[in-house]
Amino acid sequence: LQYGTTEGDPSLRKMLVERHNRQGLNLSIENLIIVTGSQQAIDLIAKVFLNPDDYVICGLPSYLGGINAFTVYGAKLKGIPLDEQGMIVEELEDTLITLRELGRKVKLLYLIPDFQNPAGITLPNSRREKIIQLAKKYDILIIEDSPYREVRFEGEPQKLMQELDPSGRVITLCSFSKILAPGFRVGWVIGHPAILDKLVMAKQTADICTSTFVQKVIARYMEKGLLEQNLKKTIDLYRERRTFMLQCFKKYMPEAVRWTEPQGGLFLFVTLPQTINANDIFNKAIERNVAFVTGSTFFCNDTGRNTMRINFSYSNPDEIDTGVKRLAEVICEELASK
Amino acid sequence: LQYGTTEGDPSLRKMLVERHNRQGLNLSIENLIIVTGSQQAIDLIAKVFLNPDDYVICGLPSYLGGINAFTVYGAKLKGIPLDEQGMIVEELEDTLITLRELGRKVKLLYLIPDFQNPAGITLPNSRREKIIQLAKKYDILIIEDSPYREVRFEGEPQKLMQELDPSGRVITLCSFSKILAPGFRVGWVIGHPAILDKLVMAKQTADICTSTFVQKVIARYMEKGLLEQNLKKTIDLYRERRTFMLQCFKKYMPEAVRWTEPQGGLFLFVTLPQTINANDIFNKAIERNVAFVTGSTFFCNDTGRNTMRINFSYSNPDEIDTGVKRLAEVICEELASK
Repeated sequence: LQYGTTEGDPSLRKMLVERHNRQGLNLSIENLIIVTGSQQAIDLIAKVFLNPDDYVICGLPSYLGGINAFTVYGAKLKGIPLDEQGMIVEELEDTLITLRELGRKVKLLYLIPDFQNPAGITLPNSRREKIIQLAKKYDILIIEDSPYREVRFEGEPQKLMQELDPSGRVITLCSFSKILAPGFRVGWVIGHPAILDKLVMAKQTADICTSTFVQKVIARYMEKGLLEQNLKKTIDLYRERRTFMLQCFKKYMPEAVRWTEPQGGLFLFVTLPQTINANDIFNKAIERNVAFVTGSTFFCNDTGRNTMRINFSYSNPDEIDTGVKRLAEVICEELASK
Repeated sequence: LQYGTTEGDPSLRKMLVERHNRQGLNLSIENLIIVTGSQQAIDLIAKVFLNPDDYVICGLPSYLGGINAFTVYGAKLKGIPLDEQGMIVEELEDTLITLRELGRKVKLLYLIPDFQNPAGITLPNSRREKIIQLAKKYDILIIEDSPYREVRFEGEPQKLMQELDPSGRVITLCSFSKILAPGFRVGWVIGHPAILDKLVMAKQTADICTSTFVQKVIARYMEKGLLEQNLKKTIDLYRERRTFMLQCFKKYMPEAVRWTEPQGGLFLFVTLPQTINANDIFNKAIERNVAFVTGSTFFCNDTGRNTMRINFSYSNPDEIDTGVKRLAEVICEELASK
């Protein structure tokens, strides 16, 4: 119940390090610190590394709720389009060249390589390697935000960018929020000790340490082997719901609507015909008790108005069936009115 | 176990509001938010209100570990001397006049009105009122940091500055760290809703919300009436230790040493003869298993080298007796060597 070290509970850090090393990494305890949710890590990275007018590069789309922490510190966001394999490397390099020519300073590249939020896309290893090469060439730090990685239903895991980068410029953010409970507010950061030292300094004045009580609760839970048991149950449950939601989409959605078929994570990303603005149908859906996140929330260049993110992890099959059916009706009505 | 609202658990906020109102305040739920320890509140206030080169005024001495959060955002600290009643109001006004003449912008006044850390001094109501008047005149926000207030052994409680200020410019920081457990990392902020709204916006990108799990644990603990029971035990224990430490000081310390006799809190503040630098005797004390915080840590103008803060809350009577005795020996040896 006392204050703990800012770096985090040593036993929890040790268990996490050992768990990563069993999965192929080669970490020591100096490569891992505990944070108050990975949102805090984003905030600390911004505080330490960003000056006003620095650029942060992210995906088009990307979860802006999280990375608004960057803009709070005066940074500018620049989005790079994704294709079905994630961020397009050529577009990234073109942008880096252009920004350099304009005399802009790009500091950070923010990526969600596994089951990207909201697109659900996983970057293949080859593209991860190319992006690391570019980051090296243009002297940029990479934030590998990885909350969904372990929620994989099928297919082959790709390597963590942390594992692919020997140069120490990847900062990997992990979290218990999607594999145990968001209400604990505990995440962890993997990276070069010199970078983590700076984050720890910033964390001292941010909250001194993450709740030692909660860290001990999680450590005990992991010691008992319950994390892996719970994770397996979570994955089985979410896989079933994902599969069922995809069936409902096929059954109810009009032909002009497209959606992703994610191998993991919590979301479908849905693209409506260009004529439909997801903001326009939001209130109509809410009236029928169906909620989604409007896609424009994810585009830092103010596009993506015909897209939406739909969560399949939370509802039971009956609710999913009813929800998709009602949403399809709203979309059909909107299409008919055009 | 889910995410909660950024403002904090409604039942915990409600209980805290009711508790304050029983103590004489007149708050509604919009006047109170939960934070991840009051350290986070300092960080959020700095983030929201400070620009580089703004001035923050604090006591000489004052706990700089906490308010280094201000300097992280580029603010400058200016210290005002304390007398035995706390911050000297005339010195405060002189400084405000001087800084205004120099064209400097003073944004915040940081105070610990009850059992000030490290000096142990409590500001009387009359001085609290005068300081609020000055803050109004010079358009400054007051941070009333109040972690020790409830740990009172004797004497009459003064009013919270929050209660004395009808203008809404006092932001009061409270914490469970000294009345329950620092390892929970839960505090709360009282203030004008317009100010709290800004802090909530900043908290969203800092950690989304304070651990909902820990908030529920504390709410349950309070519902059962255990907080008041535990607080009474804490106060009785600390009072006993404070009284015993004062006896040991009288018994062992050479005549040239002075110390405070605090009516609450956790610390004695000790002033050595001017010829002794507390930093010089620190290692010698550590060798004899006695630790203290060197006083210069508390002076933003690099003075106070002959002072030290000594904690009486943690050790049992035997340890206090031995510790004070050994510390007195070290001081006597140092005096003899001059």
